[in-house]
Amino acid sequence: MRVSEVGEFGLIAILAREIGVEYPPTPSTRPRPGLLVDLGDDAVVGRRQDGAPVFTTDTLVAGVHFLAGRTPWQEVGWKALAVNVSDIAAMGAAPDIALVTLTLPDDFCVEDCVEIYRGLRDAAGTFGVTLGGGDIVRSPAFSITVALSGWAVASALGEPIVMTRHSARVGDIVAVTGFLGDSAGGLQLLLQAEKVEGASARRLVEAHQRPRARVAEGQAAVKAGVRCAIDISDGLVQDLGHVARASNAGIRIEVARLPISDALGEVFPARAAGLALSGGEDYELALVGSPAVIEALISRDPSLTEIGEVVSLDGPRVAVVDEAGREVPLPAGGWDHFAATDPSR
Amino acid sequence: MRVSEVGEFGLIAILAREIGVEYPPTPSTRPRPGLLVDLGDDAVVGRRQDGAPVFTTDTLVAGVHFLAGRTPWQEVGWKALAVNVSDIAAMGAAPDIALVTLTLPDDFCVEDCVEIYRGLRDAAGTFGVTLGGGDIVRSPAFSITVALSGWAVASALGEPIVMTRHSARVGDIVAVTGFLGDSAGGLQLLLQAEKVEGASARRLVEAHQRPRARVAEGQAAVKAGVRCAIDISDGLVQDLGHVARASNAGIRIEVARLPISDALGEVFPARAAGLALSGGEDYELALVGSPAVIEALISRDPSLTEIGEVVSLDGPRVAVVDEAGREVPLPAGGWDHFAATDPSR
Repeated sequence: MRVSEVGEFGLIAILAREIGVEYPPTPSTRPRPGLLVDLGDDAVVGRRQDGAPVFTTDTLVAGVHFLAGRTPWQEVGWKALAVNVSDIAAMGAAPDIALVTLTLPDDFCVEDCVEIYRGLRDAAGTFGVTLGGGDIVRSPAFSITVALSGWAVASALGEPIVMTRHSARVGDIVAVTGFLGDSAGGLQLLLQAEKVEGASARRLVEAHQRPRARVAEGQAAVKAGVRCAIDISDGLVQDLGHVARASNAGIRIEVARLPISDALGEVFPARAAGLALSGGEDYELALVGSPAVIEALISRDPSLTEIGEVVSLDGPRVAVVDEAGREVPLPAGGWDHFAATDPSR
Repeated sequence: MRVSEVGEFGLIAILAREIGVEYPPTPSTRPRPGLLVDLGDDAVVGRRQDGAPVFTTDTLVAGVHFLAGRTPWQEVGWKALAVNVSDIAAMGAAPDIALVTLTLPDDFCVEDCVEIYRGLRDAAGTFGVTLGGGDIVRSPAFSITVALSGWAVASALGEPIVMTRHSARVGDIVAVTGFLGDSAGGLQLLLQAEKVEGASARRLVEAHQRPRARVAEGQAAVKAGVRCAIDISDGLVQDLGHVARASNAGIRIEVARLPISDALGEVFPARAAGLALSGGEDYELALVGSPAVIEALISRDPSLTEIGEVVSLDGPRVAVVDEAGREVPLPAGGWDHFAATDPSR
């Protein structure tokens, strides 16, 4: 059987079974010895006497995750680190040391490598990460892999605390940081035109090429008592679907409450909500917690937006409703590395 | 300029400069804040109040690091983890949590992924590693990247202690674990024949396909007071060359003292010493320390062999001498990812 036939998540489930791990995890899944959070979340979390190390890794492949020739190499470097920092942020943790692996064709330019490292360096400075080396190997295909370690923050009692995907409960509120859909809008613009003009359009492209990981927001959330979070990398609906399945709960999102930036509304007035629901690569955080906790957070950070709640549905899934409360049919969407056929996604 | 023109180590030096790090490091290089050992060693070592986390990463690319079709996928999985464990062992540290990234062509077989994971699982069990997830992405080329974390052992005073490449001093003794050249011999056999026959030949192939990382030996060495070590992945002479340059010292190796296994001597009687000197992929440890420390270690572990010493030479380099004390001319050898043109190496 080909990996394209089982898809990314099907393959992960098969391989997890091979090492004796339940995937996707459920609320009753117990992490293996030595782990606080097992695989299947934004990051894996270890357990030490004196703290909890957090690890994640993400890869960008030329022609699959970005358009070589249309994406400046500096932005490839920035993004390779930022998407990993976002996973650490989704646990409410602090990033620390990154390893970078480049797989390079023989004729790859040294100057482009330097540009990649400028992007990495800028992102490392912005997010407080130390670039600790890595590996450089020859390969027919360009890729960049970042493996990032971090540390869970400690509660007032000194215990490590993290946010997980399996901790949503009926009655919880769902909020998101920042705006949704800008990155997907920026990608559309890059695909449509040789040159992007206008302040709004440039803002969308910037959101696509230089995503900001929400490290401070994640830490503020976990300290405030938010139990559940995920970073929105594959699209809001798909990522909240992971939370719904892991938590065995329904999630209802109100389309009218989605935080749409002025820039996205201006450039894509008809498609803004669709891009916000399933555009992907926002690298915002979806935070799920009790009404009191989420409302207290929002009162301190007005860039957070309440978009829905955890409810009993006919199954662990995401329902998107319009202003009249009617469920909106969703296109199959979100990002599966092997199901996807459009290399520009 | 193409990366093939500057070579792997030239490229690393350029990129290290871009992030403000001296490469290769010298005895006077100071690690950046938050690090106990900076990039340029077998692994990078962090510094926490309560211990020292160790990180390394290594990638295998099909057609570059192994022969797809000639190497069972289970051995690819084993080796991908073992080579990383070896880097942790070379610091004298204990491995802990691994992340695995697979980049897969669309038509890659699920069954082959399962075989890879069986190899990973076996190695993880053998070396005490927890497989903590990772990433699976689509790519034109198969590769497997492991990022491995570990922990430095603590001294009797509770301080983290590690072995580095820059700590060799004139007067030190050089010893190695196990045998050298078996892996390179095994590769030669795989390249020469469809089928490998005979116990000795099979032992060499096993050494190539299922290298053992020397975790216990590394920890015993650092606890005994060995300051300097490297794992022999690119070939003894090339790897000791890294130690010589980092420590700014000469290293003299006596060819007659090289530990050659009976199997290698039997299958490659004329080439055994050459394979031991520059064959690569042994994943044994070279340990460099004071005569008293090394001799005490050898008395407890007879699988260690003294092969030479740290001396004043005309520069920081490795000299190999024959039984009469005459320097043996060395072919340019060892492994550079971009200099190499033979994908079977």
